[in-house]
Amino acid sequence: MRISELSAKSGVAIPTIKYYLREGMLHQGEQTAATRAEYDETHLRRLRMIRAMLEVGRLPVAAIKKIVAAVEDESLPVHEMLGTAHYALAPAVEPEPGEEWHSARAEVDDLVAELGWDVHPDAPTRDELTQTLVRMRQLGMPVHLGPYAETARKLVAEVEMDLLPYDGPRDAAVETLVLGTVLYGRALDALRRMAQESESARRLGLRPDRSHAECESPAP
Amino acid sequence: MRISELSAKSGVAIPTIKYYLREGMLHQGEQTAATRAEYDETHLRRLRMIRAMLEVGRLPVAAIKKIVAAVEDESLPVHEMLGTAHYALAPAVEPEPGEEWHSARAEVDDLVAELGWDVHPDAPTRDELTQTLVRMRQLGMPVHLGPYAETARKLVAEVEMDLLPYDGPRDAAVETLVLGTVLYGRALDALRRMAQESESARRLGLRPDRSHAECESPAP
Repeated sequence: MRISELSAKSGVAIPTIKYYLREGMLHQGEQTAATRAEYDETHLRRLRMIRAMLEVGRLPVAAIKKIVAAVEDESLPVHEMLGTAHYALAPAVEPEPGEEWHSARAEVDDLVAELGWDVHPDAPTRDELTQTLVRMRQLGMPVHLGPYAETARKLVAEVEMDLLPYDGPRDAAVETLVLGTVLYGRALDALRRMAQESESARRLGLRPDRSHAECESPAP
Repeated sequence: MRISELSAKSGVAIPTIKYYLREGMLHQGEQTAATRAEYDETHLRRLRMIRAMLEVGRLPVAAIKKIVAAVEDESLPVHEMLGTAHYALAPAVEPEPGEEWHSARAEVDDLVAELGWDVHPDAPTRDELTQTLVRMRQLGMPVHLGPYAETARKLVAEVEMDLLPYDGPRDAAVETLVLGTVLYGRALDALRRMAQESESARRLGLRPDRSHAECESPAP
């Protein structure tokens, strides 16, 4: 198909497609004339993948580039490629100087050790969780990570891990890992907020009425 | 304290503090001289809250402004204020024309009905989940939302709802709701990726070795 059709089918604007081509995030089409190239289903699929990571996963372009580079580097063994892609999903978090960060990081390391989880000492998720903990402490919020860790463990062990295709083509594996992590992560987050609304509505009628038709008058 | 001390304690740069003051996201300090104002703990707390929503929650400034406006609008009853703040957490998602969107949205509505959840027909989370579903389908991913809905329900009903302070000062209530949703959401997401790494490492040694010291040679 021509670039105009690729754009229509993927919902990605032509200048953006050209940008991805220049940046190496999308492989070149087959040149059929000096100013004309032909694209196929693999291009469409890659564009849909990039779009999902951007829009639904809200990943920065830099992270998406790392993921695409890991898929395309044929010299990386599959388990390395998957790990690299997985680490690219963690937002870049800079450790902060000072005791607050230091003790929160120690708390995260203790939690991982207590759980018996096999997480690399340099995994970026450790800093990500540390940052969250530091902010919670600064705001005086109660910190109870235990039930969240247990929820995550159960979900991953009982539902998610069986979906990963460890054999099969390498780009299919990374696609499943990245898209599964990103898209199901977003779905879980939306479902959690729906469940919060539902529980709140039941307990108290917590819900904005956008028309204000049912709006209670505040006490005089 | 003066603005320089407020900046040092909050980790927010002075020009950014001035921007929040201009935009009404931070209440004015007490003017003690023509070019000098005095700030207190309420300013520090608000700045920490904004910083947490920006950095950890990755919320856009527009969403944070809505949340702050809901807190400060004393005419809003508490349940409306909480609902407004809650809805501001959902990313802005535009419904897309066409059958794909239409049928995914119907699927979301069916799911909510089957679960018996009390979620407003116009809740933005419905469109958010619809968008995720559309992208999953376009990528040919298997869609199994059931276990995720059950995970969300359990977490909210058994852990989260008891933390919400429905009485007490209104800004404390919205703070707990928003920060709890945002910060614990981020914590859950990081813990889920940690659990994925751990399970993968156990099953296959899936993990990037950043030094490449343990890098396996690809098959010749």
